[in-house]
Amino acid sequence: MPHGHAHGTVTQRLIGDHLVSGRMEPGEEIALRVDQTLTQDATGTLVMQELEALALDRVRTQVSVQYVDHNILQADERNAEDHLFLRSAARRFGLWFSKPGNGVSHPTHMQHFGAPGRTLAGSDSHTCAGGSLGMLAIGTGGLEVALAMAGRPLHLTMPRIWGIRLTGELPPWVSAKDVILEMLRRHGVQGGVHRVLEYHGPGLASLTAMDRHVIANMGAELGATTTVFPSDGAVREFLAGVGRGEDYVEIVADEDVRYDLDEEIDLSSLEPLIARPTSPGNVVPVREAAGEPIGQAVLGSSANPGFRDFAVPAAMVAGRQTAPEVSFDINPTSREILQDLTRSGATFDLIAAGGRIHQSGCLGCIGMGQAPAAGRNSLRTFPRNFPGRSGTEDDAVWLCSPETATASALTGVITDPRDWADRLSASPPAPAAPAPASVNDAMLEPPLPPDEARRVQLRRGPNISALPDLDPLPDTLEGPVLLKAGDDVSTDEISPAGAKALPYRSNIPKLAEFTLTRLDPDYPRRAASVRDDTGHLIVAGENYGQGSSREHAAITPRYLGLRAVIAKSYARIHWQNLANFGVLALEFDDPGDYERIGTDDRLRLPGLHAALARTDDPTLRVRNVTRDEEYLLRHRLSPRQCEAILAGGIIPALAR
Amino acid sequence: MPHGHAHGTVTQRLIGDHLVSGRMEPGEEIALRVDQTLTQDATGTLVMQELEALALDRVRTQVSVQYVDHNILQADERNAEDHLFLRSAARRFGLWFSKPGNGVSHPTHMQHFGAPGRTLAGSDSHTCAGGSLGMLAIGTGGLEVALAMAGRPLHLTMPRIWGIRLTGELPPWVSAKDVILEMLRRHGVQGGVHRVLEYHGPGLASLTAMDRHVIANMGAELGATTTVFPSDGAVREFLAGVGRGEDYVEIVADEDVRYDLDEEIDLSSLEPLIARPTSPGNVVPVREAAGEPIGQAVLGSSANPGFRDFAVPAAMVAGRQTAPEVSFDINPTSREILQDLTRSGATFDLIAAGGRIHQSGCLGCIGMGQAPAAGRNSLRTFPRNFPGRSGTEDDAVWLCSPETATASALTGVITDPRDWADRLSASPPAPAAPAPASVNDAMLEPPLPPDEARRVQLRRGPNISALPDLDPLPDTLEGPVLLKAGDDVSTDEISPAGAKALPYRSNIPKLAEFTLTRLDPDYPRRAASVRDDTGHLIVAGENYGQGSSREHAAITPRYLGLRAVIAKSYARIHWQNLANFGVLALEFDDPGDYERIGTDDRLRLPGLHAALARTDDPTLRVRNVTRDEEYLLRHRLSPRQCEAILAGGIIPALAR
Repeated sequence: MPHGHAHGTVTQRLIGDHLVSGRMEPGEEIALRVDQTLTQDATGTLVMQELEALALDRVRTQVSVQYVDHNILQADERNAEDHLFLRSAARRFGLWFSKPGNGVSHPTHMQHFGAPGRTLAGSDSHTCAGGSLGMLAIGTGGLEVALAMAGRPLHLTMPRIWGIRLTGELPPWVSAKDVILEMLRRHGVQGGVHRVLEYHGPGLASLTAMDRHVIANMGAELGATTTVFPSDGAVREFLAGVGRGEDYVEIVADEDVRYDLDEEIDLSSLEPLIARPTSPGNVVPVREAAGEPIGQAVLGSSANPGFRDFAVPAAMVAGRQTAPEVSFDINPTSREILQDLTRSGATFDLIAAGGRIHQSGCLGCIGMGQAPAAGRNSLRTFPRNFPGRSGTEDDAVWLCSPETATASALTGVITDPRDWADRLSASPPAPAAPAPASVNDAMLEPPLPPDEARRVQLRRGPNISALPDLDPLPDTLEGPVLLKAGDDVSTDEISPAGAKALPYRSNIPKLAEFTLTRLDPDYPRRAASVRDDTGHLIVAGENYGQGSSREHAAITPRYLGLRAVIAKSYARIHWQNLANFGVLALEFDDPGDYERIGTDDRLRLPGLHAALARTDDPTLRVRNVTRDEEYLLRHRLSPRQCEAILAGGIIPALAR
Repeated sequence: MPHGHAHGTVTQRLIGDHLVSGRMEPGEEIALRVDQTLTQDATGTLVMQELEALALDRVRTQVSVQYVDHNILQADERNAEDHLFLRSAARRFGLWFSKPGNGVSHPTHMQHFGAPGRTLAGSDSHTCAGGSLGMLAIGTGGLEVALAMAGRPLHLTMPRIWGIRLTGELPPWVSAKDVILEMLRRHGVQGGVHRVLEYHGPGLASLTAMDRHVIANMGAELGATTTVFPSDGAVREFLAGVGRGEDYVEIVADEDVRYDLDEEIDLSSLEPLIARPTSPGNVVPVREAAGEPIGQAVLGSSANPGFRDFAVPAAMVAGRQTAPEVSFDINPTSREILQDLTRSGATFDLIAAGGRIHQSGCLGCIGMGQAPAAGRNSLRTFPRNFPGRSGTEDDAVWLCSPETATASALTGVITDPRDWADRLSASPPAPAAPAPASVNDAMLEPPLPPDEARRVQLRRGPNISALPDLDPLPDTLEGPVLLKAGDDVSTDEISPAGAKALPYRSNIPKLAEFTLTRLDPDYPRRAASVRDDTGHLIVAGENYGQGSSREHAAITPRYLGLRAVIAKSYARIHWQNLANFGVLALEFDDPGDYERIGTDDRLRLPGLHAALARTDDPTLRVRNVTRDEEYLLRHRLSPRQCEAILAGGIIPALAR
């Protein structure tokens, strides 16, 4: 049994049970044994190439699954070729393969593989959704996942444990999405950095496992390391419902535990909330935005994936029509949930009310289709609304619950679902899911037996490039600051998703042409012009690299010659990805120095080899050659990470 | 009543009842009154701009409908902006507006507006599908449709009437698609040029109106002017089923009629057929291709849009699984049909068997998504498989019935459905459609009242360009032959559809960059380099411009400086579009002269003004300056068309 050895909070028990090295003290680097991995297609093609670079024969985890959920529009042959490559790699290396159309990784993984007490590393920032089942589920860069598949431990900085005590019950027309929007309202997109969010308290009793998925999923938007729920009766019920009752084990915190930080939410005090464009942190009560006209409402994504997230809207629209000027888009999250919705009649009601039913997958959430007109308000049950992520340059995307999105689709303006219900004297729907739930694993191909797997040839299409060469860090770095970015730059801005860029996720030279173009359309050209000479640096504000886990946001700037970033602070996954691919992530000792550096200033960092070899002193000095000034910097890299950066990245370090 | 005055064949009665001018003699130009029009979004944005150029206040037809079915993936904001523009134009000019997701124009029009005895002009080559209800439904260029909306008659060359007598009944596992594939097997893609296909005989009794839609739709693939079925009991049944029994009138041929040409098909002798890549004319029995592995099977499109085209496959896959290496894509053609499929349980069976359910629309049929991997066989129930139309450069698309596509999806190899049924002792399914059929017009917005309409402002996004200026034809044309094309060049090759080009359908300068690039990637650049100097010519083989009705295939080369095409023969709609936009469409008097002209030869056509003013002599001479030779050419243009070409096109001609 993977549990029972450790005590304390649920987080401590999960970490304690998987600890390979390090001390469980906040800020220390720890290493954890990884039981399961998940990869999706937008990050997975690189991961499979990393497995090749690591010369892996077969994955060493208990379960590894390759999902195809991102690039499924197939505007040309490249998506289909990626899918063939991924299927061949899954067969070669002993992974499960989830076909295009089977569903979004997170709810599908929860349904088929999620198990309390296990660790899960995933090359997708919303992997943390797995915390809904009492797992320690962590989104990381692809290379970390590749190393986990190879049997190596996952390294991370021991987070502080944030106990969030829930009391009361949600009022009518308020749902799980409003709980996590409340956390974002209180704490913003940096509020969870270096923390695990651990929910506890009597309010849990009224939240199903799928409600908890909604809350755990968007913990990523607070920058948290992950989110953890206990494994209790709700988890037992969920696992029994999907025919895996035997995977249930109880994992709850000891009675007398203390958390590093404490928070309390009285569920009964919550109201419908909405995040304004263009950050998940811009949360206000729906009533404050009510009346604004909308052009689109979209249901689905890993942030609202469950049966009720579609069945409640279906009950709201049954016998009614969505407003003429609204596109009402329905993205089922897995085909099993779509089966249940169809069996129950909910699919019919959604279609009849004007719903555009799309295939199961991420779709608009990752900018693959469904782009709104510029400036037209689009309400989505998605987790993110970073600028341009929808595929539209000047988009106006709002994040809200299915109830709010549906009430607004019916009225044509942003509408508090309580007001809509009052006007119609409508009762809150409580649709019953078909029991037992549809279980259909026919689009999940199991791993091949080892002998058969070894005979599989990787099927590499012409769009799949090799990984770029990564040269060692020079002892002295000198180059221009090609970009000075503000706070909260997301990896969507560093390496965009969307229908134009995503087909190149396996083609680094081509994808690099999109790097940072949302902030400076000329960045790729300017970077290429100094790449082979000195390389370059980037200066940024707080929380640099928030959002998606895509390691492309480290690899493509590195490919273009980025050698160091100097920021006020970093988002966790991107910070790791930079180290993995040999980019030095430095912080200002005095954040005020940020103001002293201008675009195109020439910076000089001497003596790097010695500085990164020192374990007792994380500081170093940078000279601003242009202004003849010097600033004190520091890094938070572990000795293991310093070694990797000196070698040019993890892959060359391992090759040594 | 629109019928009863004329006698003879159904075609003659329909034409006779709408004849405004001309004689009903094959080869003569006739003009017809137009009762209804349809436009879709990929052609409609230009049509709406043409209505503006014509300064139209309100459409003068009985019914005009603007559908949105082509560009509905929305990879960025341009699609959504086109939709807003089209909705505003529909409201301004008094059209019905069918929202994105409501369905493909042809089956939706049939369900809501199709009526025996009426004429329908549509800016989509498959408009001929309307012939299934005893309409005269003709696909034309957008400008012809704009003129029809403005109350002007539709001009066309009086076709020969091809009576196709059907006897017997289709055997099990053979369906309507195999009837039209048999016609293509016998006669190829030029077999119907200058003809109307009129079906008659005792075999009709066993074909429903929707079966006839399948057959009428793909008459376009034979190059026919249109296809006509009588309005009989099957039409009455269809109209009653959609709640429009009052629109039924009987229209059948007189007993003693004679057709210009005769054909006979014994339905009982047919077997499952399939069109090999890359032409609808490459038809062979399925058994001859059996065993080839496939990567994809797709159901849907206007060529197989009906309830049974999905319900029969659903019954075949119920309780089974499609092959692991096959993507099984389901494109519902209208949301009302999807409602019925969902009510009846068919949607559930398709999902459970691995079906990827997509929104209602054209999708992969027009290269909007679902592109296969290069070289992997894709079986589709679509009407066309021109090279690259799928979005994949080296595609391998086959056209077949739903039965053949489904049997092959289950086995993973091309499979004759009779063999599949034999192995499983399966009986042919005869699924009953829910009665009455779902009728849901909530996504069809009716025209605004005139006063309200006049207050509507057109909503023009930044991607919507104005129509290009068209200068008059010079008296002497001299320029290089920039391209020498072979036979059967399709408008998909002249102006590609697909996810890359389609978003620019409202932006001629941008779309022009794609012109003819499938044949010569350098054509746009070479054309632009001589545009303002002399312009250029194109030389082509037989059936130039087959396929889609898109007038972009005339406008974008014209924009790039094309002034004349010299071909062995033309497809009807493209020939008209060339004239409409001021390009001279000439034919070799001796087709052997085609061989004498090379790419980049300089041709000189003097005295054009006089030549086009002559009504008694359609010949003219071209001098090959490079080779010092002269060839005799002729044109088939009516005096009306000559006048338009002299002016630079219909729009400048009307402006005079």
